[in-house]
Amino acid sequence: MYLRPVIAPAPHYHTDMASLVGGLEAGGTKFVCAVGTGPDDIRAEARFATTTPEQTIRRAVDFFTEVAARTPLAAIGIASFGPLDLDRRSATFGFITTTPKAGWQDVDLVSPLAALGAVVAIDTDVNAAALAEHRWGAARGAGSAVYVTVGSGIGGGAVIDGRPVHGLVHPEMGHLRLPHDRARDPFPGTCPHHGDCWEGLASGPALAARWGQPAETLPDDHPAWDLEAHYLALGLANVILTLSPERVVLGGGVMARPGLAALVRQKLGDLVGGYLRTPMLAARIDDYVVPPALGDRAGVLGALALAGA
Amino acid sequence: MYLRPVIAPAPHYHTDMASLVGGLEAGGTKFVCAVGTGPDDIRAEARFATTTPEQTIRRAVDFFTEVAARTPLAAIGIASFGPLDLDRRSATFGFITTTPKAGWQDVDLVSPLAALGAVVAIDTDVNAAALAEHRWGAARGAGSAVYVTVGSGIGGGAVIDGRPVHGLVHPEMGHLRLPHDRARDPFPGTCPHHGDCWEGLASGPALAARWGQPAETLPDDHPAWDLEAHYLALGLANVILTLSPERVVLGGGVMARPGLAALVRQKLGDLVGGYLRTPMLAARIDDYVVPPALGDRAGVLGALALAGA
Repeated sequence: MYLRPVIAPAPHYHTDMASLVGGLEAGGTKFVCAVGTGPDDIRAEARFATTTPEQTIRRAVDFFTEVAARTPLAAIGIASFGPLDLDRRSATFGFITTTPKAGWQDVDLVSPLAALGAVVAIDTDVNAAALAEHRWGAARGAGSAVYVTVGSGIGGGAVIDGRPVHGLVHPEMGHLRLPHDRARDPFPGTCPHHGDCWEGLASGPALAARWGQPAETLPDDHPAWDLEAHYLALGLANVILTLSPERVVLGGGVMARPGLAALVRQKLGDLVGGYLRTPMLAARIDDYVVPPALGDRAGVLGALALAGA
Repeated sequence: MYLRPVIAPAPHYHTDMASLVGGLEAGGTKFVCAVGTGPDDIRAEARFATTTPEQTIRRAVDFFTEVAARTPLAAIGIASFGPLDLDRRSATFGFITTTPKAGWQDVDLVSPLAALGAVVAIDTDVNAAALAEHRWGAARGAGSAVYVTVGSGIGGGAVIDGRPVHGLVHPEMGHLRLPHDRARDPFPGTCPHHGDCWEGLASGPALAARWGQPAETLPDDHPAWDLEAHYLALGLANVILTLSPERVVLGGGVMARPGLAALVRQKLGDLVGGYLRTPMLAARIDDYVVPPALGDRAGVLGALALAGA
């Protein structure tokens, strides 16, 4: 048995720049563990495939146990896929809750790491990535920023005044409901919860299911990409109309497609640029919707930032 | 000519509880001017219909000039319909920009009041209402809150950690894009900018146009209300999936319809309660989506709060 440690209070993510902390990116495909003080000072790192909760969490605990035996860790940050229970008063605080990922419902991420004796902070992978991109990457200097990733799912996180956005739960932007013209696109969507939500219509697996082939194999001139840009622009429009972020970082595997980001920007400008009159949705939209600067390291770096790096 | 005054910096809305400030609610139907130190201490108030910009703003200036001749005002807050230019570096800071309201495009609200010599703070009517409900009303104690009004339009504002949300511009939640099943509801929507956005589908005028009679005259058992609750729940779902507010204040003239709020809560729970597992979207949803406590005074009280009341 152990006492649940105090969680780093939200306004003080950045404590001592020099203290060594741990970061765990808990992804649906892989787990990434790191120890360091920031992006230019990673002392140890491990990556392994996400299998069962027991096996995968055990490997992460083993990594941090081994590191901590040499150098104590001030804190460990966890950046996880979700939805998560982030309510500190809840009996299931730090659990993954209703994820569609098989076997990972109701999994306790925090307790096994808290048992090591470190302070543990946890947030969604996308909130953590937003934090990392805001601190060290493509959203530096922005008063508020949204990070959206389009890959095996769609996820979005947000940072306002340097702090990830929470409240009732946490942002779950991938499940926004969008206009879906079934005459143009009869595809019913892939989300097991909502069918044709944003993720159900526009994630990588949705592309593959709609067109009957992996998204990577669709040629650049395939009509898939115009429809994809349409849905991505619609989802971003809704995020912008709600949160009004100063910058949008748009990444993920699907966004690697050449020309897709430019098409999304064009459609987004058409959707909201006439109504919200700002150069950032018109002439300067390339400075508004930007690619990530931290690439696939945003998650684990965000975990380090959650831990106070 | 005058020098534009320093605008109250965002983190310090609440300066001196005792100082007398002015508040102007600039609405599409009426303007409300007030002077006081808070909701229980209103020293003067005036209401008049919104006509032309010249005439209406002149009446507000006259009101505050007369008051200020007796007692100097530390600041004047403006809570206005929008969209607004809230970028302090912009040449058109404090202007109403692309509103569909005839004659009110590109109208400068701040300069005429700043000419009185008071510090002027400005925000959207709905951000101000969110601030007032958070400070004195139905969202007291919530870490973050969204205020949505459904009436002659649909508008939404948000407060996080006691501060209205801004960034690129400000929230414009009324123009969210939603699923619109034209087989069930062939009505094309009333928004001059977007047709079937949230406001275009579910504002009071949209109800009237869809059913051919004023919303107030539709009987309680008319199918209009089930469809209305459907669109309101869809829009709130998108807001919650993006911003994850701790509380939602849902008001406006349309929400006065008996039974409508209960129907919205039920549909909202069905839409997101299974995925976002929290009692606030299930057993406790009556404590999550709540009616305003300040009624039609939220706007002008929010204007006072913007001015430091």
